[in-house]
Amino acid sequence: MSMREPGLCVVDVEKGELRGATNRYTKTMGDLAGLYEDEAAYQAVLAELGDKVVYEVTDYKPSADAGDMIIGVTRMIPGKVGREYFLTRGHIHANPNRPEMYYGESGHGIMLLESPAGEIRTVEIGPRSLCYVPPYWIHRSVNVGSTDLVMTFAYPADSGQDYDIIAKAGGMRSRIVDDGKGGWTAVDNAGYRFRAKELVDSIMAR
Amino acid sequence: MSMREPGLCVVDVEKGELRGATNRYTKTMGDLAGLYEDEAAYQAVLAELGDKVVYEVTDYKPSADAGDMIIGVTRMIPGKVGREYFLTRGHIHANPNRPEMYYGESGHGIMLLESPAGEIRTVEIGPRSLCYVPPYWIHRSVNVGSTDLVMTFAYPADSGQDYDIIAKAGGMRSRIVDDGKGGWTAVDNAGYRFRAKELVDSIMAR
Repeated sequence: MSMREPGLCVVDVEKGELRGATNRYTKTMGDLAGLYEDEAAYQAVLAELGDKVVYEVTDYKPSADAGDMIIGVTRMIPGKVGREYFLTRGHIHANPNRPEMYYGESGHGIMLLESPAGEIRTVEIGPRSLCYVPPYWIHRSVNVGSTDLVMTFAYPADSGQDYDIIAKAGGMRSRIVDDGKGGWTAVDNAGYRFRAKELVDSIMAR
Repeated sequence: MSMREPGLCVVDVEKGELRGATNRYTKTMGDLAGLYEDEAAYQAVLAELGDKVVYEVTDYKPSADAGDMIIGVTRMIPGKVGREYFLTRGHIHANPNRPEMYYGESGHGIMLLESPAGEIRTVEIGPRSLCYVPPYWIHRSVNVGSTDLVMTFAYPADSGQDYDIIAKAGGMRSRIVDDGKGGWTAVDNAGYRFRAKELVDSIMAR
């Protein structure tokens, strides 16, 4: 194995990005078709926002080797689709036995986690909150605040992302919605379908 | 594999610690015998500081499994031993093919890195600096500022620490010292002994 050079980046909390990143990707509302419960509200927000970036990720990826880590910053704008707070697509790691660390920089978010068997957890994230996502948890972040949600993250470089696991189940089991009092609450996703035991077992065996 | 619960900690930048940590260790100047070049100055600082904590680590360790990560906070007080800035013992990961991320919270530090073959790198860390330590680099942090150096870190839970690699070489190849103008500079460590090629090759093969 050869040595790789040390890296130095800077988290720009105001801009919600990593200076010195090697990669950037952005999502518009149009990229999130089918994720929200209220299709009419989604179409209205889509018409309003157009190509505006709703969330973006900038990261530093030394390699995709098992021995490396990817570090970066995610920024999501605030807003709601109907009663449902803005969210990221969410994923399980393609190599599911891989963890992730999220660190709150600014704003107010929820890390929504779901086990392959359909257990739900919510972790509230504010500035300086350090959230540990253990292996095997499907996870998505939700902006329940009124400002950009900015988080720094780190995960093993050989993790990968599998987004389809959520789509195939009709979404995550819970949705994070306005509780009508300025806060948030988790409600059941009516379209959710539990995974077959064989599928759950095959994920957990990896 | 069974699911582990998600974790939530908070980085207390003022105190330089992780609230919700599962582990803490502290070092006094007495724990650092032999690390500084100027033995008389070391004895004087030791007499002055006594049992005062010179640096401490608080971390959240879900397990020691390969699939987990350890996240935490390190805090080091400012000061010098003679011309040499306060430092941590430093280590290479016992499983050397493991990386680490350091994130500046407050203060002004240097990450001093050395390859097994004796190459040196320095990375300057201030608030919001995100330093990536790739696999195989021996690394130590140095407080070159006038306040506590506080950093958040993350690394794979199966990394381990090997401190002896530094001691056996007579220290790291460079020392970080006062440049006489209020700043820092790296100078050669006169006591340094290069590792044998066989040892370097055996580390890099792991």
